[in-house]
Amino acid sequence: MTPPSAAAIAALKSAAGGGGWTDDPAEIAPWLTEWRNRWHGHTPLMLTPRSTDETARIVRVCAEHRVAITPQGGDTGLVGGQIPYGEVLLSTRKLCAVRDVTPLDDAMTVEAGVTLLEAQQAAAAMDRLFPLSLAAEGTATIGGVVSTNAGGTAVLRYGVMRDLVLGLEAVLPNGEVFHGLKRLRKDNTGYDLKQLLIGAEGTLGVVTAATLKLFPVMRSRATAMVGLDSAASAVELLARAKGETGGGVEAFELMKRIGMEFVLKHIPGTREPLDSVPPWYVLIELVSGEPAAAEAGLERLLGAAFDAGLITDAAIAQNDAQRAAFWKVREEQSAAQKPEGGGWKHDVSVPVSRIAEFLDEATAAVERFHPGARVSAFGHVGDGNMHYDVLSAAGGDLSAFLARWAEGSQIVHDIVARYDGSISAEHGLGRLKTDEARRYKSRVEIATMQAVRAAIDPHRIMNPGVLF
Amino acid sequence: MTPPSAAAIAALKSAAGGGGWTDDPAEIAPWLTEWRNRWHGHTPLMLTPRSTDETARIVRVCAEHRVAITPQGGDTGLVGGQIPYGEVLLSTRKLCAVRDVTPLDDAMTVEAGVTLLEAQQAAAAMDRLFPLSLAAEGTATIGGVVSTNAGGTAVLRYGVMRDLVLGLEAVLPNGEVFHGLKRLRKDNTGYDLKQLLIGAEGTLGVVTAATLKLFPVMRSRATAMVGLDSAASAVELLARAKGETGGGVEAFELMKRIGMEFVLKHIPGTREPLDSVPPWYVLIELVSGEPAAAEAGLERLLGAAFDAGLITDAAIAQNDAQRAAFWKVREEQSAAQKPEGGGWKHDVSVPVSRIAEFLDEATAAVERFHPGARVSAFGHVGDGNMHYDVLSAAGGDLSAFLARWAEGSQIVHDIVARYDGSISAEHGLGRLKTDEARRYKSRVEIATMQAVRAAIDPHRIMNPGVLF
Repeated sequence: MTPPSAAAIAALKSAAGGGGWTDDPAEIAPWLTEWRNRWHGHTPLMLTPRSTDETARIVRVCAEHRVAITPQGGDTGLVGGQIPYGEVLLSTRKLCAVRDVTPLDDAMTVEAGVTLLEAQQAAAAMDRLFPLSLAAEGTATIGGVVSTNAGGTAVLRYGVMRDLVLGLEAVLPNGEVFHGLKRLRKDNTGYDLKQLLIGAEGTLGVVTAATLKLFPVMRSRATAMVGLDSAASAVELLARAKGETGGGVEAFELMKRIGMEFVLKHIPGTREPLDSVPPWYVLIELVSGEPAAAEAGLERLLGAAFDAGLITDAAIAQNDAQRAAFWKVREEQSAAQKPEGGGWKHDVSVPVSRIAEFLDEATAAVERFHPGARVSAFGHVGDGNMHYDVLSAAGGDLSAFLARWAEGSQIVHDIVARYDGSISAEHGLGRLKTDEARRYKSRVEIATMQAVRAAIDPHRIMNPGVLF
Repeated sequence: MTPPSAAAIAALKSAAGGGGWTDDPAEIAPWLTEWRNRWHGHTPLMLTPRSTDETARIVRVCAEHRVAITPQGGDTGLVGGQIPYGEVLLSTRKLCAVRDVTPLDDAMTVEAGVTLLEAQQAAAAMDRLFPLSLAAEGTATIGGVVSTNAGGTAVLRYGVMRDLVLGLEAVLPNGEVFHGLKRLRKDNTGYDLKQLLIGAEGTLGVVTAATLKLFPVMRSRATAMVGLDSAASAVELLARAKGETGGGVEAFELMKRIGMEFVLKHIPGTREPLDSVPPWYVLIELVSGEPAAAEAGLERLLGAAFDAGLITDAAIAQNDAQRAAFWKVREEQSAAQKPEGGGWKHDVSVPVSRIAEFLDEATAAVERFHPGARVSAFGHVGDGNMHYDVLSAAGGDLSAFLARWAEGSQIVHDIVARYDGSISAEHGLGRLKTDEARRYKSRVEIATMQAVRAAIDPHRIMNPGVLF
């Protein structure tokens, strides 16, 4: 990438105004990597506009001077989509106003730099729920969550971010502002342009604000940890839970015993969630608008599941502390792998009905390819989305193992593709997976995406190293 | 529009094969108008492919010969989007297979020509719900419902068609097939191309099949007709109902007394739904996954609403016949206007919180513009979507009144725009409203839509008279 000219840099500094930019390497450094420390980017300039107008002014200068831009929110992305490699870095974190919350519309409008947690809190303050929730919610920002179409733990009931956006405001690659902050539930007046920006990973414009859907706060909630003999039983239990509750299943998270062992061994303050030691676990959480109905539904469900031989053990959380303990062993699945050595990580989805088959086939293939490799699969089974992580043999040669990552991942991804799945369910493609995705996307799809991108960003200045 | 050359017509007949086309005016005639008899199109050729491959072959010939195409499903659209005016007519009604229903995925794949009712029935046969429901469901087809992003009566709980599509298969304007029939709940691997086709009114390709989301069948359902003093009370009641039930409100339909009077007068077998005669009515339907919970929730809700002074009267349906009677007075609102003379029809949406204000302001403006005009507003208040119909004064000069439709509609639409609303909430723009929509869409939006369209259909052969 050609570095921006001195004239372009000067014009950008002038457009950003005092306090709206820095080229001090020390100030910029934290924003050139992320928490896994896997990416180390570089940029001549970091821009931090405080308004949509300032953002538009900056992008207009970039368009005129053909300067490439990488937009960045909370810098929590896992695939490098937010890390500039020569592009100017446009951070949206100073766009941080909650513009309005209108409870009668079940809607709120927040700027791109508002964190997910702040958005949840703004909704809660008006007795409403903004349901999207994920581990990085204290840092991840709405602009990033929109641009990566984030998922999380409540997708089963509430959908992904795409399902939660009523309207968007964005600066397009030519510097013009798309004013689409509608609070409408229905609007059929041409193409729904916001759908293009959602999940575009900053390649079609800079999201500056979003109007989000809110939901009623639930009256009852019940949480259980259950033990099962197989992943197939988990899928059957899920179907039964959905039928029994009419859509009241908010979370349905699968874990393997090996992942539980890593957590118990490496995460302080955790303990066995069940009396028995089953090969598979499901953390299930039901909600209801009826007081006490979630608890009643959960007891009815688990009773029937025992009778049908679907589950072998179960514990219902009796209070918030027990509920938190169940969630902790789920949430620490990833962190608990670290002391065991690195792993090949995969964020894949397959049709829910095929999860058990997929796990069997992929694990057999991985073990053939790398004898002794340990598979810790866990995640959002209700969405068909598994974090499918492969760890080296205990005490094995870690660097030799890591050297085979790409090859091993292709084995997993080829199986995912045969199951009509996705090689990136939640995290996006970013810089990490775009090339890999070319192997699985059809020529028609890639060509159509490229045509749409060229139509909206003819000079390809928006995050040019990301997506097709 | 230049008529297709004889060579193009011959190539199309050959591509369609025996039984796959007709140029017999008598056979074509029914498909050149629709039930309101407002549109009267013309076409040299009607094509009826029986497979995706045949559809692709036909579109490829059109692309080579630059022949314009109007795709058509069940021909129930209200804005002329499915009526050719010189284009060849490509009917998807012979693409009528239910390809699969997979209950564990809560998904089914149906071809474009399957009617909405058949799709609902295929889901029900597997103990699942496909929730989208609208008056024309026995005739409207899935391809049309996708292409117009249809809404209907259960949007409040389940969303519009866009929210219900997991995957799409479509023939693009160059004749290539987009194979996107995924059953995945999460897939972040580039732009979500199906979002462009949904609601594109046939301008970006021909939808040939869709994978749809299914839902659990509910265990309880309760329906009431309530009387209210004002539309503002209805909006407050809605918020209370959502909070009370945690998302269990499936329908929330507002009607005015004048609309009820038209129904009682003109529709045989209808009767007053309440003992009193309130100025406003709401038909409310609650559902729950818990047996008997909907009934309990409805009683709790109505009791609290009485106490708060929000409603003045209520009747809970005691059986299916009573429920059907409540729905009948709602569903006949439009038909019951016909004997009163024609009207200016509007399908608009505004933020839910502003419905009452909007109704007051629009009605005052309309009455100023045309003294004696009678406003019958009814519809999906839960979605902010009103069918806002203006009828001539009783006994007034009908043709003089109808001559002022365009002018009167602009008054209504200008107010909708000031309330950040939409001038076409459900029905799309088609041939009827595209020009009108230019008054309210920004230059940026229209230019972006046009750029996207030109990128995907550079020769503008897909439904060229529709959208921007």
